[in-house]
Amino acid sequence: MEKLKRSERVAAITRALSCEPGRLFTLREFVEWFGCAKSTLSEDITTVRTVLAQYGLGVVESVNGAAGGVRFYPFNDDASDLKFVQSVSKDLAGPERIVPGGFLYTVDLFSDPRVLTRMGEIFAKRFYRQQPDVVVTVESMGVPISLMVAKALGKPLVTARRDNRISEGSVVTINYVSASSKRVQTMSLPRRSLAVGQRALIIDDFMKGGGTAKALASMMQEFDVQVCGTGVIVATQEPRLKRVQDYAALMLLGAVDEEAGFTDIRPAEWL
Amino acid sequence: MEKLKRSERVAAITRALSCEPGRLFTLREFVEWFGCAKSTLSEDITTVRTVLAQYGLGVVESVNGAAGGVRFYPFNDDASDLKFVQSVSKDLAGPERIVPGGFLYTVDLFSDPRVLTRMGEIFAKRFYRQQPDVVVTVESMGVPISLMVAKALGKPLVTARRDNRISEGSVVTINYVSASSKRVQTMSLPRRSLAVGQRALIIDDFMKGGGTAKALASMMQEFDVQVCGTGVIVATQEPRLKRVQDYAALMLLGAVDEEAGFTDIRPAEWL
Repeated sequence: MEKLKRSERVAAITRALSCEPGRLFTLREFVEWFGCAKSTLSEDITTVRTVLAQYGLGVVESVNGAAGGVRFYPFNDDASDLKFVQSVSKDLAGPERIVPGGFLYTVDLFSDPRVLTRMGEIFAKRFYRQQPDVVVTVESMGVPISLMVAKALGKPLVTARRDNRISEGSVVTINYVSASSKRVQTMSLPRRSLAVGQRALIIDDFMKGGGTAKALASMMQEFDVQVCGTGVIVATQEPRLKRVQDYAALMLLGAVDEEAGFTDIRPAEWL
Repeated sequence: MEKLKRSERVAAITRALSCEPGRLFTLREFVEWFGCAKSTLSEDITTVRTVLAQYGLGVVESVNGAAGGVRFYPFNDDASDLKFVQSVSKDLAGPERIVPGGFLYTVDLFSDPRVLTRMGEIFAKRFYRQQPDVVVTVESMGVPISLMVAKALGKPLVTARRDNRISEGSVVTINYVSASSKRVQTMSLPRRSLAVGQRALIIDDFMKGGGTAKALASMMQEFDVQVCGTGVIVATQEPRLKRVQDYAALMLLGAVDEEAGFTDIRPAEWL
């Protein structure tokens, strides 16, 4: 293969980094790809880092030392994150989203890969300094957003199940009361899905009383895993006092006025 | 902002394209970003297209006309796709994955964003010529892989639920018998989740008798939606005759020998 120009190497490097967020690429990997000198590659990577930072398109982080290299995180700038959450809130506030009974139809938006990717990136940016080893959620509505957070961080996803499956081997099961359903619920997690001492980031789609997040936190205790953060797409304004204290919601949901066709939903203040 | 060099524009373009597969970017968008001439940008895009093709890192597709532009698909070359599925098969064949009762522990691998991303890209490459408008699955194990297929195609995901939620509004519900569980199962899909005449790609994690895929296909008929493909991560070798004819599995599962600690699992032949 003939030698590539800088712009060509930069295209290949950017594609590799940006399609596998959080993965450490060694300089040697790139040297083997391109057959060029390490110093040339360092300059290529500086180009990628600088322009992505300049355009708010992500962070290229260098890790020094023998096991060193570079990795990419798809973090956008704060202003465009806020603008994005504002646009989602606005969409959710529309009268056509109110379902009889005063509920909000959200499933199309919260199943859209582009919306999920972006929300996942916002959570990843919010929590990556807490250095989670794993993202934890409970099926089923929490899975899509959690997977996208896990992807943006380059970490595995662990999902507690409502029913335990024989193919999961031995499991830990806990019962809890969810404020939304006011019923006793069950969740199970395979024994081998977590290791003692890991740090878990808990992600879910919705929080009302915080019962589910609290139950996930109790489950983490059973595994001697530390909760290093909790994020939900939407939290209700009421009850103000949730069963978990520390959590980050993207949006806060107030009253859904079925008659007036208006929903009070807005971006959270930390954004 | 001062003018960028080619390598800098190429980095920004590659990041934008590769983080939003399937999304059409107009040349004008890029012109506004960089403040350079269209002809310069066309050359930039040719650079990106050529090097990604050369390294088997993806396809940059041009769409001509007034609504034209470019979009990226994260399709890898066939040889590396096969190698990837081989490595997953080898991992799944290990004795430590056999759970008492002769089941396979797969949930860690099928929850790993990198594994899911890559499998999603393989399905996307396999089916994108069928021009699906939407990816359809059923909760809960089908969701992660389906979301990654949807992401690689840049299309929405629609998920049939086991129980219907009040927040989904009016739903269509069907009952069916699953060969794996030998029980009557239920799935529901909100009325507003699909439009008449759309083309659906059905994706699930596992196929034994094909009952679930068949039920999803019947559900599509209820919505006047055409099934343009069916993909599963793992299909069992037995029964040979499934309830759906046309499907693509990544891997075929034969016997799980609990005593010998050996599982017969291999990549499908089309790979």
